[in-house]
Order: sequence, then structure tokens, then C-alpha cells
Amino acid sequence: CSSAPTDGLDRLRSLLQLCVDRHYVSPGETNADLFQRGLSCSYGPLGTELRRNLLEQWWHSVTTGRARGQVLGISTLYVSQEERAADGLRLVECEHIKQILDRQESKEEIIQEIKMLLERSPEVRTNLLTGALQQLVPSLELVNRKLPFGLAETGLCFQPSAGSGCSAEITQTSLVWFCSPRTSSQWLDHWTRQRLKWWKKFALSPSDFSSSEVPEQELEGAASRGVRILYNFPWGSETLETLWSRGNAELLHVHKGARSKLQCRDGQKSVPHVVWISGNMDRGVTAFLFNSLQQLKREEGRQKLQQRKVLKLHPVLAPVKVALNIGRGATMELRQVCGGLLQEFLEAKIFTWPGYLETVPTSAEQQIAKYDEMGVLFSVVISDNTLENGLVQVRSRDTTIRETMHISEIRKFLSRYISAAENI
Amino acid sequence: CSSAPTDGLDRLRSLLQLCVDRHYVSPGETNADLFQRGLSCSYGPLGTELRRNLLEQWWHSVTTGRARGQVLGISTLYVSQEERAADGLRLVECEHIKQILDRQESKEEIIQEIKMLLERSPEVRTNLLTGALQQLVPSLELVNRKLPFGLAETGLCFQPSAGSGCSAEITQTSLVWFCSPRTSSQWLDHWTRQRLKWWKKFALSPSDFSSSEVPEQELEGAASRGVRILYNFPWGSETLETLWSRGNAELLHVHKGARSKLQCRDGQKSVPHVVWISGNMDRGVTAFLFNSLQQLKREEGRQKLQQRKVLKLHPVLAPVKVALNIGRGATMELRQVCGGLLQEFLEAKIFTWPGYLETVPTSAEQQIAKYDEMGVLFSVVISDNTLENGLVQVRSRDTTIRETMHISEIRKFLSRYISAAENI
Repeated sequence: CSSAPTDGLDRLRSLLQLCVDRHYVSPGETNADLFQRGLSCSYGPLGTELRRNLLEQWWHSVTTGRARGQVLGISTLYVSQEERAADGLRLVECEHIKQILDRQESKEEIIQEIKMLLERSPEVRTNLLTGALQQLVPSLELVNRKLPFGLAETGLCFQPSAGSGCSAEITQTSLVWFCSPRTSSQWLDHWTRQRLKWWKKFALSPSDFSSSEVPEQELEGAASRGVRILYNFPWGSETLETLWSRGNAELLHVHKGARSKLQCRDGQKSVPHVVWISGNMDRGVTAFLFNSLQQLKREEGRQKLQQRKVLKLHPVLAPVKVALNIGRGATMELRQVCGGLLQEFLEAKIFTWPGYLETVPTSAEQQIAKYDEMGVLFSVVISDNTLENGLVQVRSRDTTIRETMHISEIRKFLSRYISAAENI
Repeated sequence: CSSAPTDGLDRLRSLLQLCVDRHYVSPGETNADLFQRGLSCSYGPLGTELRRNLLEQWWHSVTTGRARGQVLGISTLYVSQEERAADGLRLVECEHIKQILDRQESKEEIIQEIKMLLERSPEVRTNLLTGALQQLVPSLELVNRKLPFGLAETGLCFQPSAGSGCSAEITQTSLVWFCSPRTSSQWLDHWTRQRLKWWKKFALSPSDFSSSEVPEQELEGAASRGVRILYNFPWGSETLETLWSRGNAELLHVHKGARSKLQCRDGQKSVPHVVWISGNMDRGVTAFLFNSLQQLKREEGRQKLQQRKVLKLHPVLAPVKVALNIGRGATMELRQVCGGLLQEFLEAKIFTWPGYLETVPTSAEQQIAKYDEMGVLFSVVISDNTLENGLVQVRSRDTTIRETMHISEIRKFLSRYISAAENI
């Protein structure tokens, strides 16, 4: 077994194929393109679960990893009737525009009416910051006006096309952190360390994740400082998450300058400053899939060169934790045993693959190769041995070692393995 | 203590006020209106957590409550470039329309260009059915073309305004169930029972949830039968979830009649029929809040009539499971003990309220009244007694009984209490 370097394009093609074959990403070129660009694509069952796991981990780390202050979850609206910019993305009903166009009025009237319709149409959010700033006042009471504290949200956002004509959706995470003016730069550093640590925690090769200060000329609007968390894709670095120190100008603007409403305490009274941490979890999915793909070449008996691909996703991210298969023995009985285990695992919220239901005959080797490509953590084989003495074979994706275990112990073993990996 | 009947409007006003005061729903009239109509509104921290819990329960029950067939999760796109209807909701960039309007062209050219722009603009989904039908083919391999099986998804959908000029977003759940043609009506009945059981499971008064066959004249498009799951709000019944038996016409249409691609097995070969179960989880949140609000009048010592409100949300739905407070004793030390417990609970994913951080002095009575309105399951008081012998006082929302417990046992007690309630 030896690890062989492959060039970037090969790696990309290989990963895309694997993601489609193994139901992370739905087939189709548009979809592959979206996936590659770190945008929401249509995910298959495994990709859906991977993104769910990633979002769950983000939520847990941000809302419970209490950096001296409480973090509250909120949920704001996707479209807004207030605070609309003159440009931006609007939701319009086709029929309404068509009615105007069909009205046989003068050109001026048509232009006027369409402009009015646009003004009335709801605007689609492009990020989660404004919503959180609007939510600040009701949340202040909950935290006794004491800084620092944060408002967390995950949700769909829209990315304007920027001229390409092809706008797209993104699953964003957002932590808006309110702190005293004099500490905002320290908090930016604190959160940069925390976030980078979080990304690296789930990585197979952590060195592909890095952080980089945003150059002054690239700072947008209110931001006085910014840091990007990057992933080193085969074609270059892309941003997974950005951290901005944004002062309090936007907050005051949203609340029309009502300083007294916004006063908080942290030693002294002040209108809080905002540190905003915004992540793209679709690109996060792409990054972790790239990061975890291991391609191994190994020479088999008769000089046959075989390539083995393993998706070594972190145990808490891996969508399928365990697969259940049957070996030699009475099929009907073995399936019944599998059915019982499946129910037990699912109730313990362990995502389980019912390999024993497969009807196409495959060799044990082929099955293992498939599970490795799916990133399945463990595969369990139930055989006539199990019926006799309760013993099953458990094979680990990461060590490739097969162990014998009693059937009554597997669920506990799996739960412990996953939660140990989570708490490291 | 006596339960008093209050009329519907009173009840509505009372609940709305409580939801805003206790951070389920953000303040504002628009928001209250959205909430009441069962649409997505801006949720406060408690409402956000309640909806998260509800969605999590739905996902768990549907993907693991295995009704003889596998259920796979998918995630499709919010906007679609394909399969667009002539009408529908489109996302347009204001600037593009304005550019056309400003071009000084003839009326005919303007009309032509706006129509073309609309045609090119992405359409926003109004439900999760089409996405699932498109995803069928790649999923067939995973389930060995064996019926029945299902595709589950939760996500944001858009509801057209239907003339009111005010379209809105909804958090939908969708289970698209593929089964053999001859069994589809039985499956509709099966899922109706399952879904009604699920709704009632979390209810304080289960009789407010009911199911009702859709009258023939109200069947839309492809549906040959339909059932609605209703909640009896003070102003009348509203639909929480609908179950449709839809045949396979839509499926064949989406796949352009390619029957061979869609063939599945269940005894004999056939193009599967579709049973579609679609829920509105925003209205679900409203329903459970209404359902769990208990208003009790009690007479106090000197003829003072006090009203006590308790939000008796089901233990798995209740956003805050436990609140930590300090009683008599050395504040600094007691806070430290609370901090330790808080960390322990949060790591065990028990949503905990840090009541000990509050700075406004309130009586123990007032605090309990507040927690009851928040629906907090248990409140724990740490006092100098705890420092001496490790004993804490635990008060239950539902029994109002105060028990003494050792500090080392609370986490386990809470975890067990919640999971017992989940598995009933």
C-alpha cells in the first residue's frame, strides 16, 4: 500500500465522480458546477446528512462553547418588506408583471407601474447580519444588557450574480457577536482562533485550513478589520468563513440612531460593537469531502494495480456510521437479526446502512470498497456464527482491522466511539 | 386552584403577549400576524429552539420509524432553472429590470425584453414535491428498486400571495412515499394514522388534533385522495399537514414518460405511485404553543386573584429544559457552582437557562412564574446548602413539586426524563 500524489484536476474529477456515485451529490453538470463553486447544490442522501451533521456541529460549538458570554439562537425571515436597498434581489410574481405589460397603456405608464411593483416586492436576504441587528433589542433583556453575547443563525441566503447572470443560494451560518468597543479587536482574534480550531478539528489534513487577514483595500463598508478562514482547494484557496470587526455604525443605522435603546454594560455603558462571523457551509461540505478523500494504490497478487479510495470523513461528520451485512448462513434468520440491530441503531440516532437488503450479489471485497468510498465508519457482518454464539465481525474504515465483538455490545461501542471523537 | 374557560379571542391575545414577552416570537404587529396565520415569522431564541426541536422530531420519526421501507433524506434547490411554469414566483435583480426600463427603447422592445428576462429568471419553489420527484432516479439504485421507500426533506418554501399581494415563506416538511399502485390507498391510511399519532404524542390536549378526508371537489390536480391533519385553533380548524395519493402522472411527466427508468419492484414491476405528506412546521409551532398554554386562576391568601400561566410544552419540544438559579449563600461561590453545572448540561446538549446571571432582583415566586411562562421543565436552586452537602432543590414545571437531589445526579436525571418522554 502506498500513497501516490495525483495532480489537482485528476483529484477534482475523481472526487466529483465519487460524490455522484456514492450519493453525496445528485448527478448532472449544473450540479457538479455548483458543488465545485461552493454553492448549494442538490444533495443526495449522504450529502444531505453530511451537511446536517456539519450544521449541527457548528450550532453546538457556537451556542455551547461559551466564550464568557451567552449565545442565543434566532431565526429571521428570508424575505424582508422593510429596509430595502434600491437594487437587490426581489421576488416577483410573473403574472403581476405580465398583467402590467398586457394593459395596452403608454410606455411611460408601463415603466412607472413596473417600478412601483418592484418597490413593493419583497427583497431576498443575501446574508444573516441585518436580521440579527434588527433582533438585538428584544434579546438585550434576556442577557441583562451585559456584554459580550451573541446571536446565532443558520439559513439560506442568496448570492447576487455579480454580472454572471447566474445567482445562487448558499447555506450560511452567522454569529453576530456584540462586545464592548475596546475589546472588539481581541474578540476578533479570539473567534479566529476558535473557528480555525473548529475547522481543523474535523480535518484529515488540518494544514489545508488556514486563516488570513483581509488586506485593508479589500475591507468592505463598515468593516475595520477582517480575517478569512481559507481552504486550499486543488485550484487555489477559497473562503469558508469570514470574520469582520464592524464597529457599531450599521447597528445604529438599523435602529435609527436610538443610542439609549442599545446601551449595554461591560464595565462601562456603551453601544456594543459588532464582530460578525459568517460561514458558507456548502463550501464547508465540499472542503471536507476534498480533505477526506484518500487515494491509495496497492499491488495485488498477480501484478494487478488497484486503486482504493477512502473517504475518511471525521466520525461525527461521516453520514453513515455503520453498515449491516450478512455473511454465510440462513439468509432469512440473518436478515431478521439485522433488522433488529437496524432498529436499535436508528433509535439511538446512529445512521445505519441496511446493506443486508441488497439483492445484487457482490463479493465482500467489493462491498468493503464501496463502503470505504461512502465513508462508512464501520461495517458489521452477521453470519451463522452470530446465531450460534452471538459474535459478529466489525471492520473499521480507518484501521481496516476486523474485530470480533458480541452483538449486544456494538451499539454501545459505536456510541462511545462517536462521542469520544466529538469530545477530543 | 381552578381551571377557568376563557374565550378564543382572549386566549389568542394572551398567547401572543406571552410569546413576545417570553422570546418565542419577535415583537411587532407584522410578526404577530405571520405567527397567527401559521407562516414563518421572526422567531426569538425560544421559538427558534422550539422549531428546531419540532423539525428534529419530525426528521427522526420519518427517517427511523421505518414503515417496512427505507426513508432517505435529500436536499434540493430552493430556486430552479428548469421545469418552470409560465406563472409562478421569480427572483429578479432590480438593476436588470431598471436597465431595460432606462434604455429609451420602444414600448414593444421593452415588453419583449422584460418578458425574456422573466423567462430567464430562476423560479422559487412553492413546495418540496417536484424536487423529490426529480431525485427519484439516482435514489432507486440505493434502495435496489424495491418498493416501498421514501424521500424526506425539510426546507423553506414560498407561498404565492393568491391575490392578497403578500406572499410568504413557510418551513415545510415533505415525505414523498413511493409504493406499488395497488397499495397506495393503504399507505395513505397508514401514514394518516402515523402522522396523527405523531402530532398527538406531543400534545397537552390531543383532542385538538384531528384528521379529515379532503372532499372530492377540493382535490387538486393529480390527487385522487387526500387527508388533512387539522388543529382546532380558537378561530377554527387549520391544516397542519396534508397527505395526498397522487398516482404516477406527475412522476412520469417530470421524467418525460421514461417508464423503464422508473420501474420498481414490489411483487411485480411497476412505475411507483406517489403518496405525498407535506407539513407546515411554522403552523406546527403555533399549534403546539396554543395547545400547551394553561391558564390557571388561583386565590391567594388575602382574596387576591392571581392568574398563573404555564406553557406545558412536551419535554422534547420545550426549548429550555432547565434553569439554574442561586438561593441564599455566598453569591460568588454559588455562581461558580452554577457555571460548572451549566457547562456540564450544555455539553450533554441540554438547553439550560443561566438564571443565576440575572442582575435584576426578583422574588423566587416571580422567577418561577416567569419560568412557567417560558415552559422551562425544571428549575434548580443552588444555595449554601449545596456548598455544605451537595444537595440542590429541583422544581418541576408540571407537578410544581420541589425535590431535593444530589448535585451529581441532576444531569442524568434530566437526560433520563427527556428521553423517557421521547420514547413513550
